[in-house]
Amino acid sequence: MIAGGVAAGMSAASRALRQNPEADVVVFERGEYISYGACGLPYVLGGDVDSFGDLIARTPAQMRARGIGVRLRHEVTGVDARARTITVVDHHSGRSTHEPYDKLLIATGVSAIRPDWAKTDLGGVHVLRDIPDGQAIEATISGGAKRAVIVGGGYIGLELAETLHCRGLSVVVVEKGPEVAGRMLDGEYQVRVRAELESNGVEIRCGTTVEGLTGKGDCVTGVQTDHGLIRADMVIVAVGVRPNVELARAAGARIGKTGAVAVNTRQETGVDGVYSAGDNTESTHRVTRRKVHIPLGLTANRMGRVAGVNMAGGDATFPGVVGSSIFKTFALGAARTGLTQTEADALGLNAASVDVSSTDHAGYYSTAKPIYVRLTAERGTGRLLGAQLVCQNHESVKRVDVVAALLHGRGKVQDLFETDLSYAPPFSGVWDVLLVAADRLSREIGRKQE
Amino acid sequence: MIAGGVAAGMSAASRALRQNPEADVVVFERGEYISYGACGLPYVLGGDVDSFGDLIARTPAQMRARGIGVRLRHEVTGVDARARTITVVDHHSGRSTHEPYDKLLIATGVSAIRPDWAKTDLGGVHVLRDIPDGQAIEATISGGAKRAVIVGGGYIGLELAETLHCRGLSVVVVEKGPEVAGRMLDGEYQVRVRAELESNGVEIRCGTTVEGLTGKGDCVTGVQTDHGLIRADMVIVAVGVRPNVELARAAGARIGKTGAVAVNTRQETGVDGVYSAGDNTESTHRVTRRKVHIPLGLTANRMGRVAGVNMAGGDATFPGVVGSSIFKTFALGAARTGLTQTEADALGLNAASVDVSSTDHAGYYSTAKPIYVRLTAERGTGRLLGAQLVCQNHESVKRVDVVAALLHGRGKVQDLFETDLSYAPPFSGVWDVLLVAADRLSREIGRKQE
Repeated sequence: MIAGGVAAGMSAASRALRQNPEADVVVFERGEYISYGACGLPYVLGGDVDSFGDLIARTPAQMRARGIGVRLRHEVTGVDARARTITVVDHHSGRSTHEPYDKLLIATGVSAIRPDWAKTDLGGVHVLRDIPDGQAIEATISGGAKRAVIVGGGYIGLELAETLHCRGLSVVVVEKGPEVAGRMLDGEYQVRVRAELESNGVEIRCGTTVEGLTGKGDCVTGVQTDHGLIRADMVIVAVGVRPNVELARAAGARIGKTGAVAVNTRQETGVDGVYSAGDNTESTHRVTRRKVHIPLGLTANRMGRVAGVNMAGGDATFPGVVGSSIFKTFALGAARTGLTQTEADALGLNAASVDVSSTDHAGYYSTAKPIYVRLTAERGTGRLLGAQLVCQNHESVKRVDVVAALLHGRGKVQDLFETDLSYAPPFSGVWDVLLVAADRLSREIGRKQE
Repeated sequence: MIAGGVAAGMSAASRALRQNPEADVVVFERGEYISYGACGLPYVLGGDVDSFGDLIARTPAQMRARGIGVRLRHEVTGVDARARTITVVDHHSGRSTHEPYDKLLIATGVSAIRPDWAKTDLGGVHVLRDIPDGQAIEATISGGAKRAVIVGGGYIGLELAETLHCRGLSVVVVEKGPEVAGRMLDGEYQVRVRAELESNGVEIRCGTTVEGLTGKGDCVTGVQTDHGLIRADMVIVAVGVRPNVELARAAGARIGKTGAVAVNTRQETGVDGVYSAGDNTESTHRVTRRKVHIPLGLTANRMGRVAGVNMAGGDATFPGVVGSSIFKTFALGAARTGLTQTEADALGLNAASVDVSSTDHAGYYSTAKPIYVRLTAERGTGRLLGAQLVCQNHESVKRVDVVAALLHGRGKVQDLFETDLSYAPPFSGVWDVLLVAADRLSREIGRKQE
């Protein structure tokens, strides 16, 4: 039995059945859609994806044809782990039933946080977590919205800023922290992200706290902040997510300090027969060895696979994460992996960083753009800790994955410097910016000639 | 004293001076230019780089201002390693002198191979190794050339095929082997490269051997092959390069089985005080531990740095290569690192490969293109051996560097599969094609659950 049918849940279902073709796999999904790429939602609104339907990797009919039971609008609301039964509410009928299980996966994901001021019936106020949210935003845009306020300058807010701007709306991003992308990048790199948005006509108001909404009739008309009123006929609330841990807690599973469900590397909660995977679940950071809650698509899919294999009698382990993430807004790509300097400092690590600017392609090549890299390592050991990249050829920041690969194996700065990266002028400089950064960082931390 | 002033030579000069600011560093360059990016030559002809001058990283005046002596059109023609003197011919005056040295770097690079049939005075017949070659090709194009034959289907030939086609010439590539890109990729991937060229209107004739040239007056008019005559008013000979080892041999240095100069990891030839670096020099392949001669820009620069540090009293070592290379022709990017299946077989390794096709971005994202990956590993150990990628978004094949980073550390397929790659729809699929390939290859070689 699988509670939750998006990334982790459906990955687990597929894997469980591959591991044991005789397994009786049933997925309960409280929403109307399964197996969709939530990360693609902004791109449907922006037109880079034709329709919400394109985000759906597999339909319930396809899953059923493969032998996986799918119950849409069925929510698992309770667990009796001793009796091995779950309580399932059918949102069609409102009826509630008890179902036995042998193994249970809790893949309940996260919910968008709605502060008190956002708990409103006013039209035009949205979050963006699932397909119905996206459809509601599309309806507001199509209904003639002209002024959008996005509350929250994280990556979803910034992706949406581009989307809505390109759809012709004026866009204001309101962020209570001192900068946008504050949880992802160090300060200098946050500034580059903000500059890209501002140069494209998006207004950014940092250090600004939302206090309420104004409305006329049943429509939102503005956002009241501690720095005044901002008129708006559309408000997107993108202030973060919280893991849906109620079901896990009901099952007796431990909730970690991160606020997400604690599991071992097999995605076991410690409650016999109960697994947890996906955005609602903690993972281990391979660089710090600490528990973290970094809900992202690949992590969720990977956890789901591991859980599915193990639930069906196999033996798989989740390798942990190194904190890789990436996003695009307008032409700009921003990526990070490992730790930022700020994060390393907060953990008490003896970390050093270098900042390097170069070009993403050979400097003389027509499409070359500046690329900015911060590389961070531990003094003394020379161990790589992390990297941050920003470039206006957005795809060029994907080279962050080279650092991710080295972090995975606890590589050193010297390993990065010595890596035989591919080179031709349309792809990079002869000394790729990562190599330049590694060279400088080696000298900075004094481990060059070890 | 440094013989050769392009990639390795100038890297060595800069590094030597940084290592020891008191060092007396003199570079002899037989040509007219130093410190230029030879890999950019096709892109000047194609217009992606404005002028040949843009390829020059540093002029002689700039180098002299930094305290590095530069003697253009001065060729080192002899060495007396016991007396520590070199013979230098000044091509301006034709005069020859002897100069003493303390440390000598031989960075004489490679020469384009000219088969007997290409040793001609006919106008319109070119190789492309240096800036004067590029200027001569430009003159032929500007002079009204209409039909180009490129002899040789390696990456330089294929880069030039795009260039000349875009300049309005009809282009025929003649390759004596069974396919283009034959030394770089396995067969299926060679075919994809050929298809890209053919679909853009370049004619490819494989299995065709050139027997001679035809001319009228002092201009070339055609290429005689074993499959008939091909009319041409321009012929580019791109059949490969050979290392310039004469000077090293004269110094008493050993020439390796690869045909290039043998050195240790400090770039020392074994002859006291004599170093060798760059395209004329062997390196060690980190995957096979064998000596190889893979002349490429990054390798040359890296070797030069190592030599420069050591010549000036420091201690640096060359880490070896993993055989990474990459090129673009038309929209297509092709990349490889490590070994192809063909190469692994030839070495007697127990290798397995999987082929995976996916999309470079999320499948539903507007700019997504098919991407084809072959991943190769050793059965039994699960050690990664290599990867090949082809995609019509050329930059998407740069992710080959993730595999290069893992090869550097002798990583396993499972390490690649477990790597926390960055994901957002404009950059990759949630399961990047490299992860999909690693997953399939793990199963193929039966090391999945180790």
